[in-house]
Amino acid sequence: MQKKRTTIVLFSGDYDKAMAAYIIANGAAAYDHEVTIFHTFWGLNALRKDGDVEVQKSGMEKMFGKMMPKGADKMGLSKMNFGGLGQKMIKGVMKKHNAMELPNLIEMAQEQDVKLVACTMTMDLLGLHKEELLEEIEYAGVAAYLADAEDGNVNLFI
Amino acid sequence: MQKKRTTIVLFSGDYDKAMAAYIIANGAAAYDHEVTIFHTFWGLNALRKDGDVEVQKSGMEKMFGKMMPKGADKMGLSKMNFGGLGQKMIKGVMKKHNAMELPNLIEMAQEQDVKLVACTMTMDLLGLHKEELLEEIEYAGVAAYLADAEDGNVNLFI
Amino acid sequence: MQKKRTTIVLFSGDYDKAMAAYIIANGAAAYDHEVTIFHTFWGLNALRKDGDVEVQKSGMEKMFGKMMPKGADKMGLSKMNFGGLGQKMIKGVMKKHNAMELPNLIEMAQEQDVKLVACTMTMDLLGLHKEELLEEIEYAGVAAYLADAEDGNVNLFI
Repeated sequence: MQKKRTTIVLFSGDYDKAMAAYIIANGAAAYDHEVTIFHTFWGLNALRKDGDVEVQKSGMEKMFGKMMPKGADKMGLSKMNFGGLGQKMIKGVMKKHNAMELPNLIEMAQEQDVKLVACTMTMDLLGLHKEELLEEIEYAGVAAYLADAEDGNVNLFI
Repeated sequence: MQKKRTTIVLFSGDYDKAMAAYIIANGAAAYDHEVTIFHTFWGLNALRKDGDVEVQKSGMEKMFGKMMPKGADKMGLSKMNFGGLGQKMIKGVMKKHNAMELPNLIEMAQEQDVKLVACTMTMDLLGLHKEELLEEIEYAGVAAYLADAEDGNVNLFI
Repeated sequence: MQKKRTTIVLFSGDYDKAMAAYIIANGAAAYDHEVTIFHTFWGLNALRKDGDVEVQKSGMEKMFGKMMPKGADKMGLSKMNFGGLGQKMIKGVMKKHNAMELPNLIEMAQEQDVKLVACTMTMDLLGLHKEELLEEIEYAGVAAYLADAEDGNVNLFI
């Protein structure tokens, strides 16, 4: 029997939306789906390494690079963020409930062989370089996404 | 013949996005689909009862509880909300056009046997208790969502 | 063999989200999918003609009409818009990378026979008239959307 397939376009750079994406992805992988998360636009920030990485950038690239969150742990909430306070509150509650934080959810996805893809076209637009992103991810464009999605059972845009 | 199936993850707490979700859900139910709306994160607010409900809450839960809208009628717009003015304007226009307001759309969905599910994991995170939510809804997690969605014809994340 | 099908509900009025929608739509059309973009709520603004159009409007309709962007080129970013500066930056980078701007992506979609639909119910709500929207688009409601989507291989809500 053919495996079921789940694909998620992660467009959003919000902590809570990325959490939802990774929770669904990890759930689907646990149910033996083939799972792809295609990170595009602000969703690429979830794949950024924590901390500074030395790369040559143009002025505009530098500006985007500085203003966007460096990695999953730095992303804000889509609602009630209050300059980061909301994110801290949610993380506090998550600790209390033993819920996994976003960086752990991403690690878990990699361990479960969820295919993490960075959209090369929007990497160019936002001036993100491969050196700045997590190891062991794939690089592709919309054609590769569609090839996965057209056979998908669950396709979501988040 | 097997029934067609529509599943919607309602993540958003915006009045207009919830309207879109419930209009699609009611449409699909009218076309004889089996329909599930899985309410998670801010989308849970659409299921909150109007007015105050006595429940024991921790400090953080109380804060979230106070700051989040109490029920569908209190939710704001995703765009041009202007502190609630935009929502009032939209509701004014809806009355003029005899369009159904969100609480009525939810009622209609329940009458059409749309399965309304509250995500238990995010209820915990946001400190929402069953007593605060509408009657006759279901409680489940991501596994139940995926079980419905993997056979879905139309799966949306809103 | 039956053609594959992609349907997108474009709810968002953000430049970047509309870009994502049209890039996926154009990609799917290039892979020989039948593609529909169903524009509802703020997504209708992507279909507005550039510049002023003379139509009779009520006071509320006039207000919405003035406040919403007139066409794809005027839409702002979902993140880091800074009163339009972010959109200008993105457009600058796009020019540098020879990426297509949104109005060109819409033109390309029309040339590839992507079906562009305006949701009549939300046109009424927002007071948008046919004269204000692009030529050669279709007008329909949620029933027509569902008829396309229930046979869709890739269905997204953006």
